Amino acid sequence: MKSKRLAAGDAAEVHVVILDTGEEAFTALTQFAQESEIPAASLTAIGAFERATVGWFDFDSRSYSKIEVDKQCEVLSAIGDIAAGDDGKPSLHVHVVLGLSDGSTRGGHLLAGTVRPTLEVILTEVPEGLRRKKRADLGIALIDLAASRG
Amino acid sequence: MKSKRLAAGDAAEVHVVILDTGEEAFTALTQFAQESEIPAASLTAIGAFERATVGWFDFDSRSYSKIEVDKQCEVLSAIGDIAAGDDGKPSLHVHVVLGLSDGSTRGGHLLAGTVRPTLEVILTEVPEGLRRKKRADLGIALIDLAASRG
Amino acid sequence: MKSKRLAAGDAAEVHVVILDTGEEAFTALTQFAQESEIPAASLTAIGAFERATVGWFDFDSRSYSKIEVDKQCEVLSAIGDIAAGDDGKPSLHVHVVLGLSDGSTRGGHLLAGTVRPTLEVILTEVPEGLRRKKRADLGIALIDLAASRG
Repeated sequence: MKSKRLAAGDAAEVHVVILDTGEEAFTALTQFAQESEIPAASLTAIGAFERATVGWFDFDSRSYSKIEVDKQCEVLSAIGDIAAGDDGKPSLHVHVVLGLSDGSTRGGHLLAGTVRPTLEVILTEVPEGLRRKKRADLGIALIDLAASRG
Repeated sequence: MKSKRLAAGDAAEVHVVILDTGEEAFTALTQFAQESEIPAASLTAIGAFERATVGWFDFDSRSYSKIEVDKQCEVLSAIGDIAAGDDGKPSLHVHVVLGLSDGSTRGGHLLAGTVRPTLEVILTEVPEGLRRKKRADLGIALIDLAASRG
Repeated sequence: MKSKRLAAGDAAEVHVVILDTGEEAFTALTQFAQESEIPAASLTAIGAFERATVGWFDFDSRSYSKIEVDKQCEVLSAIGDIAAGDDGKPSLHVHVVLGLSDGSTRGGHLLAGTVRPTLEVILTEVPEGLRRKKRADLGIALIDLAASRG
C-alpha cells in the first residue's frame, strides 16, 4: 500500500460534464481531460448507453477480454480516475455497472459506451497530480504514487 | 458534450444524511434537498432496503418501466445528483445497484426504496447551481448546462 | 432522517491510497485510517480482486451471511465511509460490486478482498467526525449523528 495526502487549503476544482446522445463516453471524457489540461481527478457518473463494450482483465493474455452489451442500458454507476500516462497526457480509467431492461446488470472496465440520452459526470480535480506507469509484467498502466508529483 | 467549471475558492458544503428503517429514500432525500434549499449537489450512498422499485427508461413509451425488488437487499451503490427542476425546486436523480442474499444484483433508476436498517448518504453541494429541463422529445428532464446558472 | 451540515471554509483533506497485489483491502484500509488518524471520511475505489468475501445482512441471525467470490473479478464499484467505532478507533464500512469474466456481477458488504493487481482508492475526509454505535437490536454498528461530534 502506498498513500498520498494531497495538499489541503485550496478547494478542489469541480467540473460537471454532460454528454449527449451519440457521444462515445471514453473518447469524449479523455478529450475533455486533455483539452482542459486536468492532470488528475476522480469522477462519478450516471446516465444511459445505447450500447457499450466493457472489459475483464485476463492475466494470461495480459489484455482485456471484451464483453459486448448491445442494448440500451442504464449506467447505474461509473467510477473512475484521471492520471497522467507515460506520454504525460491525462488518461482515463473507469469501471461501470450497467442495468438492463429486466433489472439484471452487467459490468466491467469501460472500453466504450455510446451515450443515449445523457451521461451526467461529476469530476473533481486532485490538486497534485497522479501518474500512471506501464507495468511490463502486466501489459497495462497502473497509478504509481512514487512516480507522481507532489 | 457540454462542461462547466465550477467556482473554486470556496470549499463545497458537505452534508451527511442518515435515513432510518421505514423511510422511503427518494421522498426523504428530495424533501431534505428542498427544505435545506440545496440547489445542486452530487451524492453517493450505501445501506440497505427492505424493498425497492427501480426503472429502466423505455424510449418507445417515453417512461420508466418498473422493476420491483420485493426483498431485503443491500444498497451496493447509490450515485446521483440534485438539480433544480422546471419549477425551480431541487429534484433528485439517483441510480442504484442492489445486492440480494445470494450475491446476485439488480439495479436501475431509483423510483422508490424503503430503508432497512440504514442509508448513509454523503451529499456534496455544487456551488453554482444546475438546472434540469423537461425534454419534450423524451418525456423526462435532463441536466441542461446552457440553462444552468453561473 | 437525521442530517448534519459539515463545517465549510476548510477544504477537505483528500488521500489517494493504492493497494497492491496480495493486500487484503478491508484490513489495509482500516489500518490506513487508524494509522493516519482519519476520524471520518467517504471513499470510492475501483480495481480488481483475485478473490473476495461479501456479506448480505440477515436480520434473523443478526449477522452477515457470507458469499464467496473465488475468482478474479473487477472491482466495478467500492463505495464506503469511515467513522469512529464504539472503541473510538476509525472503522470502515464498504459495499462493492464485482464483475466476473462473462460480465455478470456479484456484490455485497465487503468482508474481505485480496487485491490483484491494484485498488485505487480516493478517500475524502469529513471534517467533523462521525460516530458508529452498536445497535443492540441489530447486532451491528450504524452511524449515529446524535452521537457524532460537531
